[in-house]
Amino acid sequence: MDFQFFVPSRIIFGRGKVKEAGFYAKGLGKRALVVTGKSSARKAGSLERLTKSLEENGVQWVLFDGVEPNPLTTTVDRGADLARENKVDLVIGLGGGSAMDTAKGIAFAAVNDGPIADYMEGRSGERALPLILIPTTSGTGSEANNIAVMTNPVTMVKKGFRNPSIFAKVSIVDPDLTATMPREVTASTGIDAFFHALESFLSLRSQPFTEILSLKAMELIYRNLIKACADGADPDSREAMALASTMAGMAIGHSGVCVLHAMEHPLSSFYGASHGEGMAPIAGAFLRFVKPRTVERLARAAKAMGLDTEGLSAEEAAQKAVTAIEEMIKELGLPDSISLFGVKEEDIEKLAQHVYNYMGHNLKTTPGSPAYEDIRQMYRESL
Amino acid sequence: MDFQFFVPSRIIFGRGKVKEAGFYAKGLGKRALVVTGKSSARKAGSLERLTKSLEENGVQWVLFDGVEPNPLTTTVDRGADLARENKVDLVIGLGGGSAMDTAKGIAFAAVNDGPIADYMEGRSGERALPLILIPTTSGTGSEANNIAVMTNPVTMVKKGFRNPSIFAKVSIVDPDLTATMPREVTASTGIDAFFHALESFLSLRSQPFTEILSLKAMELIYRNLIKACADGADPDSREAMALASTMAGMAIGHSGVCVLHAMEHPLSSFYGASHGEGMAPIAGAFLRFVKPRTVERLARAAKAMGLDTEGLSAEEAAQKAVTAIEEMIKELGLPDSISLFGVKEEDIEKLAQHVYNYMGHNLKTTPGSPAYEDIRQMYRESL
Ligand SMILES: [Fe+2]
Ligand SMILES: [Fe+2]
Repeated sequence: MDFQFFVPSRIIFGRGKVKEAGFYAKGLGKRALVVTGKSSARKAGSLERLTKSLEENGVQWVLFDGVEPNPLTTTVDRGADLARENKVDLVIGLGGGSAMDTAKGIAFAAVNDGPIADYMEGRSGERALPLILIPTTSGTGSEANNIAVMTNPVTMVKKGFRNPSIFAKVSIVDPDLTATMPREVTASTGIDAFFHALESFLSLRSQPFTEILSLKAMELIYRNLIKACADGADPDSREAMALASTMAGMAIGHSGVCVLHAMEHPLSSFYGASHGEGMAPIAGAFLRFVKPRTVERLARAAKAMGLDTEGLSAEEAAQKAVTAIEEMIKELGLPDSISLFGVKEEDIEKLAQHVYNYMGHNLKTTPGSPAYEDIRQMYRESL
Repeated sequence: MDFQFFVPSRIIFGRGKVKEAGFYAKGLGKRALVVTGKSSARKAGSLERLTKSLEENGVQWVLFDGVEPNPLTTTVDRGADLARENKVDLVIGLGGGSAMDTAKGIAFAAVNDGPIADYMEGRSGERALPLILIPTTSGTGSEANNIAVMTNPVTMVKKGFRNPSIFAKVSIVDPDLTATMPREVTASTGIDAFFHALESFLSLRSQPFTEILSLKAMELIYRNLIKACADGADPDSREAMALASTMAGMAIGHSGVCVLHAMEHPLSSFYGASHGEGMAPIAGAFLRFVKPRTVERLARAAKAMGLDTEGLSAEEAAQKAVTAIEEMIKELGLPDSISLFGVKEEDIEKLAQHVYNYMGHNLKTTPGSPAYEDIRQMYRESL
């Protein structure tokens, strides 16, 4: 056994903790670029809580609210220009995965020449402005790893950029910021966190630190996601979800995800599916594919999720986990067919090719290393 | 719920990984102070493996092998002088807790004025030379936290110095380095790791990240420590113990330990007990004291340790954990009475006073916040 574990971010967890953002920002510089989405953080009052804390601590700030869902590399480049023009010392990402990943990209691109897309294609760079990340959804876990998922608008390839410099210096996980998430966003981001936990646990790169994080995250999400959807104002399930998504984000940072995430990427970039919704209809086919190769692991997942596995064989316990996951997805009201995004049978070839050409790293971590035909088959089963 | 999680060290785990020490050292400077004990690392060949890797990577090194068990603050000051005289860029600690804690102290004292004892008493300082830590025992977990335990020879107070600057930049956990530990050292350091896991789990400052680390460490140690003692050459149990001690070290870095550790400290400083051996005879009294206040937690520990708790009440499961721990200590052949260290009934007053005066932080983390009389009583029961 052979692995590294490295998370240099200070993770600050707790209700109301966003008010400490200014204190930590002050330690990192005088002027911050605040990166967020167009409206949601503003509507929910999170942006105001953040900027108030910055001002109380004498930190100047400039707003970049041009973040779109599935952020484009060109958006990141524009943000980097703004960071340079305003000579900011640090970048603060406030929002869901899109905002945090855009902030990560901007922090990097602001101190490296040329478009960020070049660095995604292998150009080397190792510096970034210091980052503070503040999630307002419980899904991506971006606050706990050094991955930024961006889409190149020329190739329409959506993929993860990974660099040691884009770990947050400080991540503030304040469950109160998630309290105003609409039901559908709670469901789709929450199921994303669940798949982070599940896929990192099944990943061939799973290791002891990520194993315990993945299992704990699965437990918390299975017990709390449906509750958080039913009653968004319930602080306990919001807290549990916030914790779980950070843990799962830390796990994928080391152990990666599997083919399920890979197959979702083109659904976002070509059909505009939201990330969590995109995975929901493929999950069944994914689980059928990996199950024969991961019986022991799925049986452990069943136990972690709190299912009664007393007296069951590993095979039976694994099946119980699969069934429970499928039922959770159904109960959350997530899409049950990729045709809902507009995918037609004749599109599958193109989707499978995209996965095969661009997502090879996620195929390698998947037990059974799915071949081209396996990917096509999983898409077909998800129609 | 409210906590921070922060471990900025890159943890590199795996058999043979000490050979990568030079690569990481090179990234941190040109000249290293290697801090180690008088003979054990040398005898076992660990020092040679380390220095070979340094030389292959063009890193110069100076040896400080003056580390004693229960290291003195004055030893640290001498090491810091040597570091300054030789203008080293980094400090590498190789050995058990004493060597790593001395290395931490030296890295700090080398760039701060005056004796380290002043900083243990509250003088402020926030810089240290970069550190690489390489454990050769599986016990202290010092490689995964920012605590250095030192004894002030004037006051004979042994306590932990904690500073954000003394996290390792890189920790190399190579189970092969532990393969030559004698049986007794395996047992006494291994039980230390177990108590780190148990006490951090019972601690009132326990939080979700340390909980999963503590539970996993208890599982690994309960399953592997006796095996590692019986057959030191068994790589699997050595690997499990190395992993567990790192996890438990990470847990205590955040959640602290309890009164059991506190009560051990004067046994080391006044009677020369080894740290792990010092705790063994007190463990029973400690468990009896905390059990009524930690039934649920001890029941979870029982489950994590793999004990069959099917159909048991929480109370019964907790008792099963207590009994299993006491039996493990017995089977390891660890001391079963503090009188073996020379403690007499009339000494208990002095010991209890020491704990009460100097270890207050470990009393506050202990469920039930033991009073002076409770501490006396626990010592009496341990005679
Ligand atoms: Fe995801
Ligand atoms: Fe200890």
